[in-house]
Amino acid sequence: MWERLRDKRLADKIVTADEAASWIEDGMTLGLSGFTRAGDAKLVPIALAEKAKRENKPFGVNVYTGASLGADVDAIMAEAGIVNKRVPFQADSTMRKKINDGSIMFVDQHLSHTAELIRTGVMGQIDYAIVEAVAITEDGMIIPTTSVGNSNIFVDQAKHVIIELNVNQPLALEGIHDIYTPEMQGERGPIPLTSVEQRIGTIGIPVDINKIKGIVVSEVVDSPSTIVEPDEETAQIAAHLIEFLRHEVQAGRMPRNLAPLQSGIGTVANAVFNGFLDSEFTDLTVYSEVLQDAVFDLLDAGKIAFASGCSITLTAEKMKHVTENFAAYRDKLMLRPQEITNHPELIRRLGLISINTALEADIYGNVNSTNVSGTKMMNGIGGSGDFARNSRLGIFVTKSIAKGGKISSIVPFASHVDHTEHDVDILVTEQGLADLRGLAPRERALKIIDNCAHPIYRDQLRAYYEEALTRGGHTPHVLEKAFSWHQRFAEEGSMLENAPVLSR
Amino acid sequence: MWERLRDKRLADKIVTADEAASWIEDGMTLGLSGFTRAGDAKLVPIALAEKAKRENKPFGVNVYTGASLGADVDAIMAEAGIVNKRVPFQADSTMRKKINDGSIMFVDQHLSHTAELIRTGVMGQIDYAIVEAVAITEDGMIIPTTSVGNSNIFVDQAKHVIIELNVNQPLALEGIHDIYTPEMQGERGPIPLTSVEQRIGTIGIPVDINKIKGIVVSEVVDSPSTIVEPDEETAQIAAHLIEFLRHEVQAGRMPRNLAPLQSGIGTVANAVFNGFLDSEFTDLTVYSEVLQDAVFDLLDAGKIAFASGCSITLTAEKMKHVTENFAAYRDKLMLRPQEITNHPELIRRLGLISINTALEADIYGNVNSTNVSGTKMMNGIGGSGDFARNSRLGIFVTKSIAKGGKISSIVPFASHVDHTEHDVDILVTEQGLADLRGLAPRERALKIIDNCAHPIYRDQLRAYYEEALTRGGHTPHVLEKAFSWHQRFAEEGSMLENAPVLSR
Repeated sequence: MWERLRDKRLADKIVTADEAASWIEDGMTLGLSGFTRAGDAKLVPIALAEKAKRENKPFGVNVYTGASLGADVDAIMAEAGIVNKRVPFQADSTMRKKINDGSIMFVDQHLSHTAELIRTGVMGQIDYAIVEAVAITEDGMIIPTTSVGNSNIFVDQAKHVIIELNVNQPLALEGIHDIYTPEMQGERGPIPLTSVEQRIGTIGIPVDINKIKGIVVSEVVDSPSTIVEPDEETAQIAAHLIEFLRHEVQAGRMPRNLAPLQSGIGTVANAVFNGFLDSEFTDLTVYSEVLQDAVFDLLDAGKIAFASGCSITLTAEKMKHVTENFAAYRDKLMLRPQEITNHPELIRRLGLISINTALEADIYGNVNSTNVSGTKMMNGIGGSGDFARNSRLGIFVTKSIAKGGKISSIVPFASHVDHTEHDVDILVTEQGLADLRGLAPRERALKIIDNCAHPIYRDQLRAYYEEALTRGGHTPHVLEKAFSWHQRFAEEGSMLENAPVLSR
Repeated sequence: MWERLRDKRLADKIVTADEAASWIEDGMTLGLSGFTRAGDAKLVPIALAEKAKRENKPFGVNVYTGASLGADVDAIMAEAGIVNKRVPFQADSTMRKKINDGSIMFVDQHLSHTAELIRTGVMGQIDYAIVEAVAITEDGMIIPTTSVGNSNIFVDQAKHVIIELNVNQPLALEGIHDIYTPEMQGERGPIPLTSVEQRIGTIGIPVDINKIKGIVVSEVVDSPSTIVEPDEETAQIAAHLIEFLRHEVQAGRMPRNLAPLQSGIGTVANAVFNGFLDSEFTDLTVYSEVLQDAVFDLLDAGKIAFASGCSITLTAEKMKHVTENFAAYRDKLMLRPQEITNHPELIRRLGLISINTALEADIYGNVNSTNVSGTKMMNGIGGSGDFARNSRLGIFVTKSIAKGGKISSIVPFASHVDHTEHDVDILVTEQGLADLRGLAPRERALKIIDNCAHPIYRDQLRAYYEEALTRGGHTPHVLEKAFSWHQRFAEEGSMLENAPVLSR
């Protein structure tokens, strides 16, 4: 323990999770560590939810995080009904239900924006930062665990800090973090980072130790990632994408080792990275949010030279392997705050290749990443907007159909737009790839229908587009039929015209 | 003349516009100077259109510019039918017609993106850069006139360069340009600019003089701006916005002299700037694209300390005044390439207040800047996406109604989304202002309806929203009625329910 709590003056701050939770009052705003199930504060939020349930009084807090949490923290808090406002990302089914019935106000923010808004006071005062750490150093630095997220800005801006000192997170993580926090807008200089492996900050989060109100010792490990193995379709998506990148190199538009790669969270994005395993590409670099299983497979295979991320989120088996062999990865990894991993300045300068998942895309290349049928929140935009807008190549991937063909991922009009036609360079499904760069909407439509849509939907898409053309315009549409596919799915259970009626 | 053409070796490059036009072949790509009617190449493009009409053979070129052109260049080229592809912005009614009937392919790009895409070869080879200049220096630099736009990247990347040396553009412009061109992505360092008045580049565009194929002497002045005077509604918009900024200063979220201001082109944006004339704010700075009349009024009034832009676009009267008194402005002005004025790195670092015009906004804050009724292109997204996404405050302004109330600018669902709910911080109409920062969609809807919608449309919007709430979701909608307002306008001539039928 004392190798982790090195400032002995902090010894009398050790408390139980229940005691720490007792300090938190109705209406407060909490800043929790945690990014895609990694490095989240696991004890105090749950103790708080349990206390609220026990006391059974009206109680609510605003919960700000890096991104999604593991350990059922979001589920337990949502279930207990203690979340007023949730910012900026979540991925939990119980919380999702509460968001969609309007009982939790969810603010779906670009992940690079939250820190700026907190810094200027727009998001209100953070009362408690609750962050997981592997150690607190003798010079007053909190060493985060498997993610950084917004922890640096939470610690900086909060009135009080509670640390969950996790003795089961490997101490070997110390040294892989690079904490850099920009000054106020208008008072800052350039962020000096010019390559993925460059260190620009400190190895921990500096903290005024007088702000540390409590230290809770934790033994709870991160929840494993839930991604599933690549399947035939995701392998095809990866193959199309790698063929395209090969062509970009041949055309002289890209170096032989490509450009730093970013990939969104989830199964498809992980599968795309997996595709590089059997490719000719080597000396790759990663500048991403989440480092998933495939990144470590590529490190093992000697394909990736360096990976910079905001969190390490792994399946149970991979987590065991990485933890046991951490020395082999240490010098090839860096974890940064999400304000830095997702910063437009750096994304544009480094010229990333960004690969993110679409829920649906329309025939002109507008992408919905968040709201199913335009209304029901899935997880949130996450970093996809930070990356797609500012990267060298903004790539979106999706399977062309869902629910056994009842849903087409390519639709006449995206029912919610998170990424506009101006931001989507490349669209890839298992059917093929559409390179939309430098194309007008009418040129994009045919390419998307022909290359990306599933064959069972192509005629239906062409029919919509043909009718739209009779109306004219730069972006032809039949507005009264724009969402007819979504309506048909809601009413008949399938977007397919003349499909057997499945419901009713 | 020789004070403008200082390298005597270039004397034998002087040709007529017709001769220069004769070099341009079918299928070529041209990079023209010009940004919002300022500093455009005025002779060669028109000579080319006339030649094509005379010869009456199939002929087409791709036309890339900074932004919109004056001198009817876009109209004449469109009329002559010589434009295959037009990139990245235009604002001409004749060209608009051809874009909307599908005979010109228009690529509506973020204005900061075009240079990156040209640099990497994605937009194809530029055959001829045709740029207006006040002078060509002895050390081989092209001194631009009243705009920079994409001229630096065009000159850099083109096979050949044609210069329109304009003897009626004031030579006093020399020294106000600051030309900085980033290296390739992945090979560049930080852009060193940290304040609006800072010089980071050269006073002209460096050119290999062997690439200069011809010099055409021009006497044609810029087309004056067509903005109209502020009216009651635009003054109310300005008043709401200034009251809000005052409140931000009082709350300690903004310095007393605010932050560098950006405003989009056009009447409303100009009127908003005009509103600062009678405000208490002084020592303001501008970091914008177009410097319109109001910027010079504010300079005259001692309200603005420094203005950095990409072009100077003025009404006829103001142009005369500024030209005659240029010495008074010289030290307070700088013109930069649009890649720099609109660069996400700089917009985020400086923390701009960005003010852009919406065509329509929906009840959740998604903004349409481009496509009327989702289909017909107006002008283009311009720089509004560069600014709104990356600024400290992304503000959109619009009058709450158009066409005498037949159109509501606040609609259930934006018929085209250029700026997503994640990017729109503040929405302002003459009715009032909605501060959307940190709000969930359900919180935004009521605020937008109550504060921004016109009273004649409020009940209708509330009825839509109430019905949407019965369907549930994070972003409640009634998809089959989402575009019913646009349909009603198309069919009945008004978005108002139960309005007298105006057409049919």
